[in-house]
Amino acid sequence: MILVFTDFGRRGPYVGQVEAVLAEAAPGVPVVELLSDAPAFDPRASAYLLAALVEPLPAGAVVLAVVDPGVGGPRRPMVLRAGGRWYVGPDNGLLALVARRAGDVSAWEITWRPERLSATFHGRDLFAPVAARLARGEPPPGEPLPPGDGLVGADWPDDLAEIVYVDGYGNAATGLRAGRLAAGARLEVAGRILGRARRFGERPEGEAFWYENSYGLAEIAANRASAAAALGLAPGQAVRVLDD
Amino acid sequence: MILVFTDFGRRGPYVGQVEAVLAEAAPGVPVVELLSDAPAFDPRASAYLLAALVEPLPAGAVVLAVVDPGVGGPRRPMVLRAGGRWYVGPDNGLLALVARRAGDVSAWEITWRPERLSATFHGRDLFAPVAARLARGEPPPGEPLPPGDGLVGADWPDDLAEIVYVDGYGNAATGLRAGRLAAGARLEVAGRILGRARRFGERPEGEAFWYENSYGLAEIAANRASAAAALGLAPGQAVRVLDD
Amino acid sequence: MILVFTDFGRRGPYVGQVEAVLAEAAPGVPVVELLSDAPAFDPRASAYLLAALVEPLPAGAVVLAVVDPGVGGPRRPMVLRAGGRWYVGPDNGLLALVARRAGDVSAWEITWRPERLSATFHGRDLFAPVAARLARGEPPPGEPLPPGDGLVGADWPDDLAEIVYVDGYGNAATGLRAGRLAAGARLEVAGRILGRARRFGERPEGEAFWYENSYGLAEIAANRASAAAALGLAPGQAVRVLDD
Repeated sequence: MILVFTDFGRRGPYVGQVEAVLAEAAPGVPVVELLSDAPAFDPRASAYLLAALVEPLPAGAVVLAVVDPGVGGPRRPMVLRAGGRWYVGPDNGLLALVARRAGDVSAWEITWRPERLSATFHGRDLFAPVAARLARGEPPPGEPLPPGDGLVGADWPDDLAEIVYVDGYGNAATGLRAGRLAAGARLEVAGRILGRARRFGERPEGEAFWYENSYGLAEIAANRASAAAALGLAPGQAVRVLDD
Repeated sequence: MILVFTDFGRRGPYVGQVEAVLAEAAPGVPVVELLSDAPAFDPRASAYLLAALVEPLPAGAVVLAVVDPGVGGPRRPMVLRAGGRWYVGPDNGLLALVARRAGDVSAWEITWRPERLSATFHGRDLFAPVAARLARGEPPPGEPLPPGDGLVGADWPDDLAEIVYVDGYGNAATGLRAGRLAAGARLEVAGRILGRARRFGERPEGEAFWYENSYGLAEIAANRASAAAALGLAPGQAVRVLDD
Repeated sequence: MILVFTDFGRRGPYVGQVEAVLAEAAPGVPVVELLSDAPAFDPRASAYLLAALVEPLPAGAVVLAVVDPGVGGPRRPMVLRAGGRWYVGPDNGLLALVARRAGDVSAWEITWRPERLSATFHGRDLFAPVAARLARGEPPPGEPLPPGDGLVGADWPDDLAEIVYVDGYGNAATGLRAGRLAAGARLEVAGRILGRARRFGERPEGEAFWYENSYGLAEIAANRASAAAALGLAPGQAVRVLDD
């Protein structure tokens, strides 16, 4: 299985072009559009979101991850083997958290280049063909990186006290794993202090709270209402944990 | 084939997570995202839309249907066999109309539970694995319900005189099957009375009318314009049939 | 592989219904949603976009192309064999540019009709079943058109000096192939004159320019900003080439 995680947007032709390349180069391998609206141009927020999203999914997949504002510049293209999965993407921090949270990690710099490499769409031209090779059982087409080779993002925090994603309901996921927070922890965001709920139905309609979302992150929500609209939340916004 | 019908929104990671589970658990079975913006939190409007949408499609599919505002609460998870298809979803009325319109119906309460069941995402954790089992030819993992067991929605009307869906062009489908309306029927909505057209091209640009849409529902539209914007239509809005 | 190119919108049930028909009628053939928000009701702009988008993709696919404002009217349903690919869609100009740019072209009028043909959704009822047949290796179900038979759009220009697509980042693709423009060409649009860049990173944040996009078209963009919002660009807007 190939899971595609990008900031390409669900609108538009970019995901479709990548899927066409994968269908051609990895026949019979299912391709799943995991997320196409990762925080745009933001490999850091995307890294925390990606690590959380793949955690509950079946192991064994190839994850094609492209949030790549530096496309065409000097950032290294990379393959990672971590936690039983393959990851393909830029070395700009996007894969830093899946690397850190896995016990066993190996990394390669992709040295293979396609015949035709556009300046702006390495997702289609470079990363997708490499993901297809890995899905076919071939080895990474590149050079192993020594264990001491620092990947971008190696110095980032374990959890990110920021909004990393706002979904279509207006729920705002943070980069904080709920399981790491104290039972009674409250979150301060946009000048408001929010307590924890276990389920939406526990709260009156419209009231904001935080809860552990289905992929393990602390998420700010409101019962049958848009927390993002009510509180003015957007990706990148800071969150503060109050543990008292 | 597994058809996925939800109110998860096309934006966001929910459909992708469900598809990843299905690809893993039902290898080789095509998965089609039938609709991801069903009326949010509204199993009743969604029920009329679902019944109409699947009607013209090839029989034999497994339909994974999740519009589930009561997730985590006491509503029963359910499997339905109706009209040659399997349906998996909550017993909250969402499947009431496909059940009523099929000659042959059997129902099961799902008693199987996964090792890991999140509080808020039974679509991924419970319903998708069950849909995959059915697609692999396994029997429903639960208890048959006696024929007299009333499903939620058993008392709902045969057709729903409401807007149930507004598409990207601004066409507004109602829960009324066009084939049940008199040839000269007019629809009253938002203070306007609209006559019937057979094709868009019959009417001048911008003029509103109703017609039988491609899946059999009476739909309010305007030629090369957004009827929803022009008349102020949204899901849930009442419609009245004038038969004179 | 079947590539699906439409103006149906990613929201809504139309793409899903088409994919359900394809999955049933062409088992084992991968289906890729290439683009679902082609310029709505605009076969001409869509024709230039389609020809550019498929160009870098693997040959050998069946392309199901539906931008069909005249559905149900007299326009002919058509199969085209061009550049090693099959194309299925209406003869309203949508396929005119892929036909012109291929060396070898054959065309058929589809004379087969399904048992059930809705008035408004030939994508699902007529074009998708024909695409599935071609993907299964069957011949076009229709009559070959004589080489002299003029397809709609045969008299359109080789390149289109208009915005044909605005993506989710706010980049605005024109119908002009960048490879046909002089090295120093500038584009005038919305009262602004824009120079060429090779990569986004060459320009200061927010500055507008044009560049060759990943599928070969001249595209108006701004580094880490929405050119469409900044300049007020939308599909259909005229562009002028300044070659001095």
